[in-house]
Amino acid sequence: MFSSVKVIGRGRVGNAVHARLTEQGLAAGAGGPGDDDADLVLLCVPDSAIAAVAAAILPGPWIAHVSGATPLAALAGHERRFGLHPLQTFTRARGPEQLDGAWGAVTAEHDAARERAHWLAGRLGLRPFDIRDESRVLYHAGAVMASNFLVTLYRAAARLLETAGAPPEALLPLMRRTIDNGFELTGPIARGDRATVDAHVAAIHQSAPDLEDLYRAMAQVTRP
Amino acid sequence: MFSSVKVIGRGRVGNAVHARLTEQGLAAGAGGPGDDDADLVLLCVPDSAIAAVAAAILPGPWIAHVSGATPLAALAGHERRFGLHPLQTFTRARGPEQLDGAWGAVTAEHDAARERAHWLAGRLGLRPFDIRDESRVLYHAGAVMASNFLVTLYRAAARLLETAGAPPEALLPLMRRTIDNGFELTGPIARGDRATVDAHVAAIHQSAPDLEDLYRAMAQVTRP
Repeated sequence: MFSSVKVIGRGRVGNAVHARLTEQGLAAGAGGPGDDDADLVLLCVPDSAIAAVAAAILPGPWIAHVSGATPLAALAGHERRFGLHPLQTFTRARGPEQLDGAWGAVTAEHDAARERAHWLAGRLGLRPFDIRDESRVLYHAGAVMASNFLVTLYRAAARLLETAGAPPEALLPLMRRTIDNGFELTGPIARGDRATVDAHVAAIHQSAPDLEDLYRAMAQVTRP
Repeated sequence: MFSSVKVIGRGRVGNAVHARLTEQGLAAGAGGPGDDDADLVLLCVPDSAIAAVAAAILPGPWIAHVSGATPLAALAGHERRFGLHPLQTFTRARGPEQLDGAWGAVTAEHDAARERAHWLAGRLGLRPFDIRDESRVLYHAGAVMASNFLVTLYRAAARLLETAGAPPEALLPLMRRTIDNGFELTGPIARGDRATVDAHVAAIHQSAPDLEDLYRAMAQVTRP
């Protein structure tokens, strides 16, 4: 559907996407003569820069962004447009294989755009699903919870283990199995063991008081 | 070091432990004549029952519990005692292989107990580490954070995705990669993108207000 895709932005996502499109023979050259022929311009720039970069591009080619929370309105002035957000966390230490098996959130206003977004997702290695423009922020909040707050949770838990003299890496098999077991709840809260939960709060209050609010807020929501 | 281990309790942990000891030829028979010869009694009962069950056992054999937060004092009346907590979440749908690769928290008051606890950990498939009796509650609070609150985090995030019309299973590759990437923080909070975080809070406030406190508490701690 597209023969040449120009990727703007070489951050974590832009790097992986550009590498994958290069593998697929779809990447527009880096400043070469073919660049002006790109039939899709893919914005991999920070959210706050999308509107300005889009405004600087002459209408003509398709244009898309890879942001999670940004509405299509940021691509004002372009009618052939869509959003495709790879639901994944990227590191510079890995390459395009980071895209494989991740899902991609597609926002499109008409069938032609949706069809192209799904095609691009497939070429990138993503599993596409559709999401309405006005639902992107809520969706993205969920993604941040699942990824960024997972980091927070690990760091908090690791700090408690370190303070207790235990190796924090001991948490890894536990966390991986929790996912593999389909997030089945076990442990003191599932058992209604209020005494253990109270003892946890008291121990955190004494040894890591800045984590007490986090523990309480999470325990409150966890209660079956 | 032990030739016969009697497992009391057939909950999630007791089941897996008993199955592994049976594989190893170490499990005392189920009411058979060899039962009285068990040189270790391993309590896999609920935390609240440990003291009572231990008190009902005549001093003589070694005695141990597999609880995370329970102090050795719960095994009062026994001097040959230790604690070995498998740092894992268990399901009845799996067998003894659930123990493989997990870590085990050992609490022991003297070398003879420590040596036996480490030996048992090895036979169970656990990687042992030592932890002081008075640090168990803090350690266990960290374990609960990493496992139980991970369930909570997924459920909360999945609800946001469902409300937004996105498939919650799309979070799985994201969460697994977050772990595989060594919990490297990416996303809006890492980028200092305050506008996106504020938009998340507003969207959650409108669509899932009971999760607003959780989001705020986690975002507060996540801030770099």
